[in-house]
Amino acid sequence: MSTRLVVIGGDAAGGSAASQAKKRRPDLDVVLFERGRATSYSACGIPYWISGAVEHESDLVARTPEQHRANGLDVRMRTEVVGIDTDKGVVHWHDLDAGTEGTEPYDELVYATGSVPMRPPVEGIDADGVYGVQVLDDGVALRAELDSGRVRRVVVVGGGYIGLEIAEACRERGLDVTVVDRSATPVGTFDPDVGRFIADAVREEGVDLVLSDGVAAIDVGPDGRARAVVTASGRELPADLVVLGLGVRPNVRLAQEAGIPLGTSGGIAVDARMRTEVPGVWAAGDCVESVHRLSGQRIVVALGTHANKQGRVAGINIGGGYATFPGVIGTAITRTCSIEAARTGLAEHEAEAAGYEFLTAAVDSTTKAGYFPGAKPIRVKMTAERRTGRLLGAQIVGKEAAGKRIDALAICIWNEMTVDEILSLDLSYAPPFAPVWDPVLIAARKASEAVEADLRSC
Amino acid sequence: MSTRLVVIGGDAAGGSAASQAKKRRPDLDVVLFERGRATSYSACGIPYWISGAVEHESDLVARTPEQHRANGLDVRMRTEVVGIDTDKGVVHWHDLDAGTEGTEPYDELVYATGSVPMRPPVEGIDADGVYGVQVLDDGVALRAELDSGRVRRVVVVGGGYIGLEIAEACRERGLDVTVVDRSATPVGTFDPDVGRFIADAVREEGVDLVLSDGVAAIDVGPDGRARAVVTASGRELPADLVVLGLGVRPNVRLAQEAGIPLGTSGGIAVDARMRTEVPGVWAAGDCVESVHRLSGQRIVVALGTHANKQGRVAGINIGGGYATFPGVIGTAITRTCSIEAARTGLAEHEAEAAGYEFLTAAVDSTTKAGYFPGAKPIRVKMTAERRTGRLLGAQIVGKEAAGKRIDALAICIWNEMTVDEILSLDLSYAPPFAPVWDPVLIAARKASEAVEADLRSC
Repeated sequence: MSTRLVVIGGDAAGGSAASQAKKRRPDLDVVLFERGRATSYSACGIPYWISGAVEHESDLVARTPEQHRANGLDVRMRTEVVGIDTDKGVVHWHDLDAGTEGTEPYDELVYATGSVPMRPPVEGIDADGVYGVQVLDDGVALRAELDSGRVRRVVVVGGGYIGLEIAEACRERGLDVTVVDRSATPVGTFDPDVGRFIADAVREEGVDLVLSDGVAAIDVGPDGRARAVVTASGRELPADLVVLGLGVRPNVRLAQEAGIPLGTSGGIAVDARMRTEVPGVWAAGDCVESVHRLSGQRIVVALGTHANKQGRVAGINIGGGYATFPGVIGTAITRTCSIEAARTGLAEHEAEAAGYEFLTAAVDSTTKAGYFPGAKPIRVKMTAERRTGRLLGAQIVGKEAAGKRIDALAICIWNEMTVDEILSLDLSYAPPFAPVWDPVLIAARKASEAVEADLRSC
Repeated sequence: MSTRLVVIGGDAAGGSAASQAKKRRPDLDVVLFERGRATSYSACGIPYWISGAVEHESDLVARTPEQHRANGLDVRMRTEVVGIDTDKGVVHWHDLDAGTEGTEPYDELVYATGSVPMRPPVEGIDADGVYGVQVLDDGVALRAELDSGRVRRVVVVGGGYIGLEIAEACRERGLDVTVVDRSATPVGTFDPDVGRFIADAVREEGVDLVLSDGVAAIDVGPDGRARAVVTASGRELPADLVVLGLGVRPNVRLAQEAGIPLGTSGGIAVDARMRTEVPGVWAAGDCVESVHRLSGQRIVVALGTHANKQGRVAGINIGGGYATFPGVIGTAITRTCSIEAARTGLAEHEAEAAGYEFLTAAVDSTTKAGYFPGAKPIRVKMTAERRTGRLLGAQIVGKEAAGKRIDALAICIWNEMTVDEILSLDLSYAPPFAPVWDPVLIAARKASEAVEADLRSC
């Protein structure tokens, strides 16, 4: 009798796990449940489809159900798994279109249910015209609203990555856009000094930023539709449409009901091979927690790139191979309006929370040699541990060709390099690509000088 | 009595050494000799000034003699050091404009004479109209020729970085350009499969490439001016101007005469603190040899970024600090016509020469998410050691936003990472910057699969 793998969730993590397992072990029966209308799509691309930069919804889909089926997977679309019985090894499903129900036995199970948008528990939050942007079907609904022509004023609640990307998308469509965020600077995963650059760029684009102010309520009209966002300070922001960009939390309800243990962060606890604590049950993607390699803490990071890697790891292991997911270091990048912002490692407040003593250094430079046509401003900020000089975190903000330099610093952090070691690195140089001292090396040099000065004064 | 530092050469290495030493030790007397008309300029920027992309010669100068003087340096322009007496601790100088001569005593000496363009020992090589492009004054002369309007056909001898950059610059000025190179693909520091992409891009731009053919002679007209390049195969390439782009060799004549030892590569032998084997004599920049961290060999790499770092290291040490230059790994980048090409670590032939057994993997991907507007092609090639999977080399070729990704892989090599470790790295992802699997991660994944398959078959 053949072995059966059941995968719950057909996006990045689930799709990768199913594909890898089948590829490694062709005799495996693989059943993939997806409650939405699409598999293996780029949720991160939704804002760009909403803005119109990406033309077709189908452009966002990396692998369709038909393509998965051609690879030998039994794909069940619009079918939600509503229960897991880990003792019997079955899942209960519900076909959302046909209205039918049933069970499916499994030998191995991959739990890849992703995340759900945070919804603040305020009055009116469930009104019509309030949207999260998490799955492709959310994007479809939101875009239909925008295409209807009846929306002129959009209020985005939350100024994180997705919030700002959606704000920019709406702005590009010529709408009036206001973003409300509780923090003093948007994208709170950046240090405030870097966040201010982002705020300036967003405002330059004509987006209204309401900062240091939370959402107290959604004002709902007599037609049951949201018509304004009321802030904690009492401001009333008129809205034809409200978009929630408050981030996401892991979708763990089913797992909790089935007794699959969560970790301290609220995500599903997994080991490096992506095994949960229940034998035969694996988990991957936005719903699991990962180890932060610097703080040692377990955290939940909802990012397609981790989901893909984790799904691949689970699939390889299920397929009889051996692979591990070694954790994360908090790397992220965004392009908001004309600005690129990227970070890796620990932000200042995270370094403090993790108990590190540190120094910071920031430099302003250019993306190409200063004299070269098209050279753009770039600011690189580094956080280095006192005494050891180990790089703990880095943030980059600037124009075109600035952001992706963060990868170099992510790898430095990954390898526990000191800022002194970093400044000697053999990085690429030619005038169209960098000043003779690349901005990341100048920042390392400045940080190294700060570490030395600090040591001399001890 | 104060201590006197004499620095021979006022470009990247010499200028950095002098500045750092003075900064660390303000009581130091620093005398900087420069035989040319400029200090601390970007030689790498000359092609872009010739093309007109960079407007003014002065844009290429990072620090003028006046700026150095304002920092307390005694700068002697147009003054060539013609001899070093290491027993007496004096240098002999010759003021090229005034015609005067003299000596200058030193306690510490920095030898930073840079490099000289290779000139093939063929008939006619010293004719008028044959130019090297090494120092800013060469660029001035070459640009004057081009501005004269009498040049229509340019032949560039050598298809390396500088050769192709000059070829492109001349092409942008609307000239007929032919590049002659002995190798089958241009830029021989790249593997031939990558070199072919570069060749295609150069030809697309309308540059005529004559490959697998060397220069046999320069045909000189009755006016004493070069009028054609004659190749080894007998082709005659008419030329109003001949530019030598055959690379450079360290300028070590003075050092040899003074008994300052060279290393096996022909560059001046230095330790990690940039000390030569003669007490009190330091050296830095294009004239010294560096350790290649992978092959362990001593090599000469003429690059402004190394020169700046080495000069800084020498200056810190002379100034009473402690700093080292840890060697190189062969990172380089170039933009030729519309193509970006970059490399790090060992090319295939270098890995072979160093005795490594290796596997290669190459992938074609895009610089942004495939569906994102402006996504451009990128090819990433990796060379991994058999059995261990250690990354030995990487090459990238593609369009805009492709090349600088090499820095990430340079840091992986620096830290002796395996391709399996690399594919799990937490690199930045968002659709405007990368596919969900960054091209460098896809390449690592493919290389890792090759290493695994090879191990399974052993």
